[in-house]
Amino acid sequence: MVVQPPPAAPHEPRPAPSLSTARIETLADGVFAIVMTLLVFGIVVPAQEQVNELGLTGALLTLVPNLISYFISFVILGVFWVGHHNQFFYIKRSDRTLLWINIAFLMFVALVPFSAGLLSRYGSEQISVIIYDINLILCGLTLYWHWLYGTRDNHLTHIPVDPAIRRLVVRRILLPPAFYFLSIVLSFISPEISIALDILIPVLYVLPSTIDQAFRR
Amino acid sequence: MVVQPPPAAPHEPRPAPSLSTARIETLADGVFAIVMTLLVFGIVVPAQEQVNELGLTGALLTLVPNLISYFISFVILGVFWVGHHNQFFYIKRSDRTLLWINIAFLMFVALVPFSAGLLSRYGSEQISVIIYDINLILCGLTLYWHWLYGTRDNHLTHIPVDPAIRRLVVRRILLPPAFYFLSIVLSFISPEISIALDILIPVLYVLPSTIDQAFRR
Amino acid sequence: MVVQPPPAAPHEPRPAPSLSTARIETLADGVFAIVMTLLVFGIVVPAQEQVNELGLTGALLTLVPNLISYFISFVILGVFWVGHHNQFFYIKRSDRTLLWINIAFLMFVALVPFSAGLLSRYGSEQISVIIYDINLILCGLTLYWHWLYGTRDNHLTHIPVDPAIRRLVVRRILLPPAFYFLSIVLSFISPEISIALDILIPVLYVLPSTIDQAFRR
Amino acid sequence: MVVQPPPAAPHEPRPAPSLSTARIETLADGVFAIVMTLLVFGIVVPAQEQVNELGLTGALLTLVPNLISYFISFVILGVFWVGHHNQFFYIKRSDRTLLWINIAFLMFVALVPFSAGLLSRYGSEQISVIIYDINLILCGLTLYWHWLYGTRDNHLTHIPVDPAIRRLVVRRILLPPAFYFLSIVLSFISPEISIALDILIPVLYVLPSTIDQAFRR
Repeated sequence: MVVQPPPAAPHEPRPAPSLSTARIETLADGVFAIVMTLLVFGIVVPAQEQVNELGLTGALLTLVPNLISYFISFVILGVFWVGHHNQFFYIKRSDRTLLWINIAFLMFVALVPFSAGLLSRYGSEQISVIIYDINLILCGLTLYWHWLYGTRDNHLTHIPVDPAIRRLVVRRILLPPAFYFLSIVLSFISPEISIALDILIPVLYVLPSTIDQAFRR
Repeated sequence: MVVQPPPAAPHEPRPAPSLSTARIETLADGVFAIVMTLLVFGIVVPAQEQVNELGLTGALLTLVPNLISYFISFVILGVFWVGHHNQFFYIKRSDRTLLWINIAFLMFVALVPFSAGLLSRYGSEQISVIIYDINLILCGLTLYWHWLYGTRDNHLTHIPVDPAIRRLVVRRILLPPAFYFLSIVLSFISPEISIALDILIPVLYVLPSTIDQAFRR
Repeated sequence: MVVQPPPAAPHEPRPAPSLSTARIETLADGVFAIVMTLLVFGIVVPAQEQVNELGLTGALLTLVPNLISYFISFVILGVFWVGHHNQFFYIKRSDRTLLWINIAFLMFVALVPFSAGLLSRYGSEQISVIIYDINLILCGLTLYWHWLYGTRDNHLTHIPVDPAIRRLVVRRILLPPAFYFLSIVLSFISPEISIALDILIPVLYVLPSTIDQAFRR
Repeated sequence: MVVQPPPAAPHEPRPAPSLSTARIETLADGVFAIVMTLLVFGIVVPAQEQVNELGLTGALLTLVPNLISYFISFVILGVFWVGHHNQFFYIKRSDRTLLWINIAFLMFVALVPFSAGLLSRYGSEQISVIIYDINLILCGLTLYWHWLYGTRDNHLTHIPVDPAIRRLVVRRILLPPAFYFLSIVLSFISPEISIALDILIPVLYVLPSTIDQAFRR
């Protein structure tokens, strides 16, 4: 791990000594890997009694909603992971503030298995939908804060961020919180519509978009 | 972590800025490490009542099938990990599509503890064998997709992939899904034969093969 | 992972072969990521019976103390992670002793979910507060030992540590153990005051301070 | 992660393309981090009924054997981690065989929480001691195999291994399996003596030794 400024030192005249982002990324990858993997605990092998009653196939069919919840949560965590990952294309240095924004972000990410579990267990109740949405809004907003702070006046970037890219990224980061906010509003009409929207949001994000050009060109 | 293009910049005239594969690999290694380690939860220290009834040695003997399941699942996950690992010998850059293929792959990998648990608990039922086989087929097919996309027209590789190597790798990746498909077919005759085949498949993969030459030469 | 001396070799006349700190950092990041993520297990989706009795909102309200405990423990682990992370700004090599100091440190870190769980379950009893405080004191003291050993006579650092920085770091590392010791003393008066102090300590650490200048300059 | 040969390519005339050891080390660090952290699950916050009966302090005192088991298992895992870590000071390349030796090693490492749990629950029975010892012998022997294969005829090392170092390392790796074998023999006289020996073994390994000179010189 850890490609820190010093290795570059012999080649460059004045490498600014500062903390690398390597360990932030390792910690984040670790938290994401664990949170994603723990989601499988939401799908439990049916107990003998349930199998006696419904047959194994019948018992497994009751797991279909849990499986959907698994896929949706995995994908939304993937969305945040990809978003976090892409930011470090620009952000190359860290300071204490960035470390703590990351820890706040991971704190909300690590809560997702709880709020996803709540939703898949009590999905018909509005409060579950609201808590799930708030959790994902907080993930999105801390990720936005991370981008704002990390690229502000380029003190942590090695190349200046093109203002057009910046606007594109900001829009892209803020879109899911906006949708999840809409989902909260809709939950006052019907939790089912909110859940349908919550299922749609990650799907939208997997589809390729113009921002990829910026990284690929 | 993270050897990204920039460090190479001082030495090279025009480094194409693009996302490195470093964090994909860290995330994958994290998921594999957790999934492998969680398999041990399939082997539970016997409860006092069971020990009272059978004696400790007797109670431990009932764990032998779980131990076999542990070894087989560990090895098949090893097969996928090695396959994933080897692909990055060629794939050196990533884009959004590759990120998402990886997340899809990891989504199926993280399901293995569930389907392995199902198989070791309800192994005599055909549906368990089929679900286990489908899970591993999906792992294999996403890994195949990863190879196809990652080496297609070499936009993500740093050296072109020799067509002979490519054919060898494709054959090697597609063989396990083919065997697991065969196992599904056989399960209509007897789940026991299917399980025997499922135990054999990882063993075949641990044995050395011609493909190693390509990486070692 | 692993930027070891060899990569620098072509440029430098005589790279001293020695163990890099890369894997210490990966192991530590892994332990921290897991410990942080496991904290979410302290917040359990309410069971059906509890919901029948209190309603879902009522049942969720009983989780508020667990949520506070989650945030506080996450932050204090963040404090230790940041402290550990920053030390490797100076410490660039490792030997067997440093490896073992790290393992001792991680041993106490990995106990935090237990002692935090104890505190959130039996917070009104003095013994819980004392165990929680002792656990965090041991984390702090091993981290202090790590700094002392790692920077002593600069045998593991690549640049000498400015004595002023050293004093600042020592003060910063020793402050939390001092506070947790105070918390133990206060627990003989009232466990509630101790808990209030325990909540305050991590908050103090998130606030920026003069030490950041040293790394940012 | 992953500093592979290619990045060095621009500077060196003929970089031998081969698989780096980086991801082996990441996977191993991940497994070790998880296994170590999961050990804390052996120390459970006392249930209310037990506290009602014994008082909280009394209930916590019943956890002392579990705490000892936690420390001993953490240290022995640390011994294996340090041993694995140190081997990569010499081993710089990997091939399929090395990957699979690693997976076999990690398979036995990931079993330690089970056999440690068995020992701490049924420590007075000889079979528990024997299973625990066999598990650690298998960890030790696969680690020995790893060293033998990885340094054999130097095809995976970048500098030849001094024969004196080699003998020293072999002795050091084989000593714990020898002790655990002795522990099995002694268990036929008394499981208590075996357990006492099992507690002593990791302690011996933490103490510094002559081998450190080889890495530090």
